[in-house]
Amino acid sequence: MRTEEVHQPTGRVLVVVCDKGEEPVSAIGAALHRHDLRAGRVTAVGGFQEAEVGWFDRERRDYRRIPVREQVEVLSLVGDVAARDGEPVLHVHAVLGRADGSTVGGHLLSARVWPTLEVIVTEVAPELAKQVDPETGLALIAGPGR
Amino acid sequence: MRTEEVHQPTGRVLVVVCDKGEEPVSAIGAALHRHDLRAGRVTAVGGFQEAEVGWFDRERRDYRRIPVREQVEVLSLVGDVAARDGEPVLHVHAVLGRADGSTVGGHLLSARVWPTLEVIVTEVAPELAKQVDPETGLALIAGPGR
Amino acid sequence: MRTEEVHQPTGRVLVVVCDKGEEPVSAIGAALHRHDLRAGRVTAVGGFQEAEVGWFDRERRDYRRIPVREQVEVLSLVGDVAARDGEPVLHVHAVLGRADGSTVGGHLLSARVWPTLEVIVTEVAPELAKQVDPETGLALIAGPGR
Repeated sequence: MRTEEVHQPTGRVLVVVCDKGEEPVSAIGAALHRHDLRAGRVTAVGGFQEAEVGWFDRERRDYRRIPVREQVEVLSLVGDVAARDGEPVLHVHAVLGRADGSTVGGHLLSARVWPTLEVIVTEVAPELAKQVDPETGLALIAGPGR
Repeated sequence: MRTEEVHQPTGRVLVVVCDKGEEPVSAIGAALHRHDLRAGRVTAVGGFQEAEVGWFDRERRDYRRIPVREQVEVLSLVGDVAARDGEPVLHVHAVLGRADGSTVGGHLLSARVWPTLEVIVTEVAPELAKQVDPETGLALIAGPGR
Repeated sequence: MRTEEVHQPTGRVLVVVCDKGEEPVSAIGAALHRHDLRAGRVTAVGGFQEAEVGWFDRERRDYRRIPVREQVEVLSLVGDVAARDGEPVLHVHAVLGRADGSTVGGHLLSARVWPTLEVIVTEVAPELAKQVDPETGLALIAGPGR
């Protein structure tokens, strides 16, 4: 376990509102790039008309893709932003709610917003750096202690 | 996609603890009104002895109501606060956990707290304004870019 | 309902990255203790290779234990930190996602991280105090209004 205590957070907050039909992963990524925000906490609520989430398959070292082809509430969208090679990388997981209240979720790969997605990103440090983990091929937060 | 970067957040945090038997949507709304907090991020954990969540039905332009008539853990309660006509509006979604670990969730319409609900609201800007969307009848965050 | 408005939050943020094989409840608890952080909001994403979550049984006044014996995505991990007898107490609930996108969740009792768990703790006040509730035996946030 590695910890970093930030004593002088920047105080920047980014509010991103995705409109009907937008793809949120690329939209949030574009907003992070435009504002050069490389470390932060992400939360959101709203709705998707369709989505694709993933479960990381340890054997195949890749995400198993789980398509969601119906209107769902975005019950939670929680994650973070860190930097890989100086560029912001979004890492968010989502829990989605169907018409009967049942849920499905995973690593958010892509989605189509309807009617809105209200995203709040609070910057927590100037930068959190990611490095590729050799075992999984995933970019994980390296942290100051490594 | 519309974004707003807040450079001088207010730094206000509201901690709301709901006690046994309280209705949390109205309790949190009353706290927001009393403290005049019109824009923020909301998270909470705790438990409900019953709840009603909703799934927005695109055809009927209204929430389909999903009653939950059992003791559940509030696994996540995530959302935001924005202003409509100058008044704070709470928008939160919840994932609830049953005795066997299965989950149910939706837009939080109402609930009965047991034994506690610990809510943290962090103000993110002086105000985020909502406007009624003609297609759905829902009040959505309008943002500065519209 | 009891509320506390914090006018001068400390601005401290703790980023905790748990590595493969670590037990996150004790790891986060150790980080809170080391940094003497006694009040805050907690969110995280990542993955577990196994976990145990709980549902609070009102009759037995104890958690019913729900074992999760498979690789899961940590779809959400949301909660708070408060102080009991001057020591930080972590209170987090988790929603976990299986290979088919189905979910299971509860009060997080213990887990084994794989491949990472990225935790952000934002301090919200110098201290939120917990007191033991006589009815349940649980330590609940007492708040200034009690």
